[in-house]
Amino acid sequence: MPDKNEIVSGSDFRMSYQTFYKRIGQLANSLKTKGIIENMRVGVMDWDTHRYLECFFAIPMMGATLQTINVRLSAAQVLYTINHGGPDVIIVHEDFMPLVEEIKSNFNRDITLIPIGNGEGYEDWISESSSTYDFSDFDENKTATLFYTTGTTGNPKGVSYSHRQLVLHTLGLVAGFSTYSGDVGLHRDDVYMPLTPLFHVHGWGFPYAATMLGVHQVYPGRYTPETILQLISNEGVTFSHCVPTIMSMILDGPNCSQTDLSKWKVIIGGAALPSSLQECAKSEGISLHAAYGMSETCPFLSVADLHSDDPKVQAQSGFAGPLVDLRVVSPDMEDVPHDGESTGEVVVRAPWLTKGYLKNAEASDALWAGGYLHTGDVGFLRQDGSLQITDRLKDVIKTGGEWISSLSLENIASSSCNHIEAVAAIGRPDEKWGERPVLVVQVSPESDQKEVQKNIIDEFQSCLEKGEISKWAIPNDIIFVEKIPKTSVGKINKKVVREDFLKNLDLKS
Amino acid sequence: MPDKNEIVSGSDFRMSYQTFYKRIGQLANSLKTKGIIENMRVGVMDWDTHRYLECFFAIPMMGATLQTINVRLSAAQVLYTINHGGPDVIIVHEDFMPLVEEIKSNFNRDITLIPIGNGEGYEDWISESSSTYDFSDFDENKTATLFYTTGTTGNPKGVSYSHRQLVLHTLGLVAGFSTYSGDVGLHRDDVYMPLTPLFHVHGWGFPYAATMLGVHQVYPGRYTPETILQLISNEGVTFSHCVPTIMSMILDGPNCSQTDLSKWKVIIGGAALPSSLQECAKSEGISLHAAYGMSETCPFLSVADLHSDDPKVQAQSGFAGPLVDLRVVSPDMEDVPHDGESTGEVVVRAPWLTKGYLKNAEASDALWAGGYLHTGDVGFLRQDGSLQITDRLKDVIKTGGEWISSLSLENIASSSCNHIEAVAAIGRPDEKWGERPVLVVQVSPESDQKEVQKNIIDEFQSCLEKGEISKWAIPNDIIFVEKIPKTSVGKINKKVVREDFLKNLDLKS
Repeated sequence: MPDKNEIVSGSDFRMSYQTFYKRIGQLANSLKTKGIIENMRVGVMDWDTHRYLECFFAIPMMGATLQTINVRLSAAQVLYTINHGGPDVIIVHEDFMPLVEEIKSNFNRDITLIPIGNGEGYEDWISESSSTYDFSDFDENKTATLFYTTGTTGNPKGVSYSHRQLVLHTLGLVAGFSTYSGDVGLHRDDVYMPLTPLFHVHGWGFPYAATMLGVHQVYPGRYTPETILQLISNEGVTFSHCVPTIMSMILDGPNCSQTDLSKWKVIIGGAALPSSLQECAKSEGISLHAAYGMSETCPFLSVADLHSDDPKVQAQSGFAGPLVDLRVVSPDMEDVPHDGESTGEVVVRAPWLTKGYLKNAEASDALWAGGYLHTGDVGFLRQDGSLQITDRLKDVIKTGGEWISSLSLENIASSSCNHIEAVAAIGRPDEKWGERPVLVVQVSPESDQKEVQKNIIDEFQSCLEKGEISKWAIPNDIIFVEKIPKTSVGKINKKVVREDFLKNLDLKS
Repeated sequence: MPDKNEIVSGSDFRMSYQTFYKRIGQLANSLKTKGIIENMRVGVMDWDTHRYLECFFAIPMMGATLQTINVRLSAAQVLYTINHGGPDVIIVHEDFMPLVEEIKSNFNRDITLIPIGNGEGYEDWISESSSTYDFSDFDENKTATLFYTTGTTGNPKGVSYSHRQLVLHTLGLVAGFSTYSGDVGLHRDDVYMPLTPLFHVHGWGFPYAATMLGVHQVYPGRYTPETILQLISNEGVTFSHCVPTIMSMILDGPNCSQTDLSKWKVIIGGAALPSSLQECAKSEGISLHAAYGMSETCPFLSVADLHSDDPKVQAQSGFAGPLVDLRVVSPDMEDVPHDGESTGEVVVRAPWLTKGYLKNAEASDALWAGGYLHTGDVGFLRQDGSLQITDRLKDVIKTGGEWISSLSLENIASSSCNHIEAVAAIGRPDEKWGERPVLVVQVSPESDQKEVQKNIIDEFQSCLEKGEISKWAIPNDIIFVEKIPKTSVGKINKKVVREDFLKNLDLKS
């Protein structure tokens, strides 16, 4: 159908959907000459380009598994994911060749490397092949994709999805995001640009949905605020998705104020949507809505009401998508009341959730304990059925039989003044209460710690007076540190924060 | 999500989605008390009401099969479908009780009848039951629904669908009809009213899609122009679907001109969309678009570009839906060129096509010959991928190695003057050419046959001069009859037309 809609990659590549289909055949034939047949694995290390999108289709369509390698991990972790996933071939963009050179002597199997450049390398390679490939039928439960998820503990874990799951997730995503009237969500005449790396849960699955709908698509290559803003402007991008950090990066970009962003709709996931970011985006005319999911859930689970322009509603984890059976349960798997305040763990079923971690039966069993996938997130359901995530289960502070959301304490502290660069609320072991909350704060170098401390205490006092928190939720201590440790994807690494804190406690005692 | 959206039935029943869910549990428990358990069959004979929608869900969710009985068939055919389908229980609206009384002594098994009235009967029955029913999981390939399709030959054939197929069809329907921006298609804030009987391919599957999207739904009960127009007006109906005959009936309704229909979007299927109907609808502000499918395809296969307001484009069979592999092939299953004129049979694959006819291996094998479902329709594909159906395969007139669309001849004849009530183009056996086209015409009583004949001949001559048809496609004879026979669903019964014609030929020779 989309005669005029194209797939654009960076500033110098564009193709029709007809050409795209032919190139999928060419890529498949090119991989065949490298010995790739059904059931083999092909790793990809590339920026977010048309090449990656071609890999999204050609490799699974051959019956092979696409392993999307997270190039942001440390060299040791990349090596681990390659040795654990076991690709037969890796397509490597030249920018990641130094990384591969560093680790390849430690590969635990023979791997054919296919080096590609920004243009010629890949183009020369696939141009030699016929565009006609006889993609055969096979079992829908065959593994289509594999990638690794990194938590704060242990080695990365392999998450895989079948063809059946990708198709159902694509349909579910469209039913969840494309069925609103008016100018919200992703429709056939939108211009789509992913801003979640394609190695991360297939760019949240939107490239598959955008392709099914035949929309005009734009791939930004390596993320820089300049390129992204220029592509938004040149191609008229109207729909994207990203984590808050990327949105902040763009809003802080040098050309941001000169670019018209008033037609841009962005889905925010991966972390809570901060109200400061909402305000900043709103001043540029950007429409932000939160969505919720995780690597193990393909990832779509829920999305805020896209019709709403109330910032509070827009920031909600929202309503479970079609075919998603989402519950909030107590530790013994009983539903908590849907009263907008009773919290529990979010557990889910849907036909597109990963069936388990690759070669890790123990973690897989824990993930699916009791027949539901355990998200490890804590939240509550409102009467209208909308979900609010309040914390990670392992970050919840358990005091006197009650759960305190570490996230809510961090939000209160953050809003107390402008000098706080990062804040982590953690539980300090306490004989009487089990745990008591403590704030670990990183402030800007020029700021006055005493003043910041006073601001934080005042803010908690004010929240207490307004009835927004309970007295027992007020942190016992505020500790200032030079730098709060973060994970490879820029999230606060609470595990390390806790370890450092406990170490210091030991030293003191 | 839809807190305020309701499910409305006729002028005196409305409920919330929350109530709807509870009533599904009540109906399931009520059926359980009638002995219904997994794998049994429940027949339904009712108008298009909320009760039917409750049956759409409760019966399959119990693991039983919902048999939607076509109440418009002759008593003998209804009896045949009941004896062939074998329901254990039939829920019968009082209006169909006389029909059941007439045939029930010939039932070939014990069937429990559950008589219901417009209100009390059903309400009293289900109100006695708990709304909590433990719907258990089962194989997605379990049969969910069964109904009978009537051709012009032989007995009705049983078509069934599994849970998996209904879910995929629902998602495919939404991806095909709900992903346009602007005010076209079915969105979450539409008001939906089916105008295809619910016994006919689950009301084309839209009740399932509307329920998934949580839209405001309106069920019209027994179809009368008055009720339909009143409901459109009172409830603000914006989206419906029907065959051309129903649309004509509404446009001819007494209150039509007083009702604002300018927000009404209607999908036309089941037969070609006549340009006269398009014009008439347009003058009322109704937006009509064609879609294509059949009983054996659940039914969605393709839909016209919903964004277009060009009547020619709106009347096209349109673009194949997501997950629909649609081909136009020669008798040896080779693709014909996509040039907008080469015709062939339309064959399809999609995950929601029926796997075969109940207890009829021969017809099932023919349906799926060569691994594709044979629609029995003839058409062509344009370069842009859009489909045009030109005829039924069995109605095509084969002359001198060429195929003439009987439908195109009928359209030319119809447009020649206003006195033609019905027209059928059929093939007369011919020694030299194989077949030659003949027109069988039914005119209004007051009209002059000679004048009509002259108009038809002139119209064909004009089409010939404009290059719209070939010389050999001009009918050899025009035959006037008092009444052209029709099928139970109001389509011209070409088989009988042909038989009658050949009988007369025999009498003459």
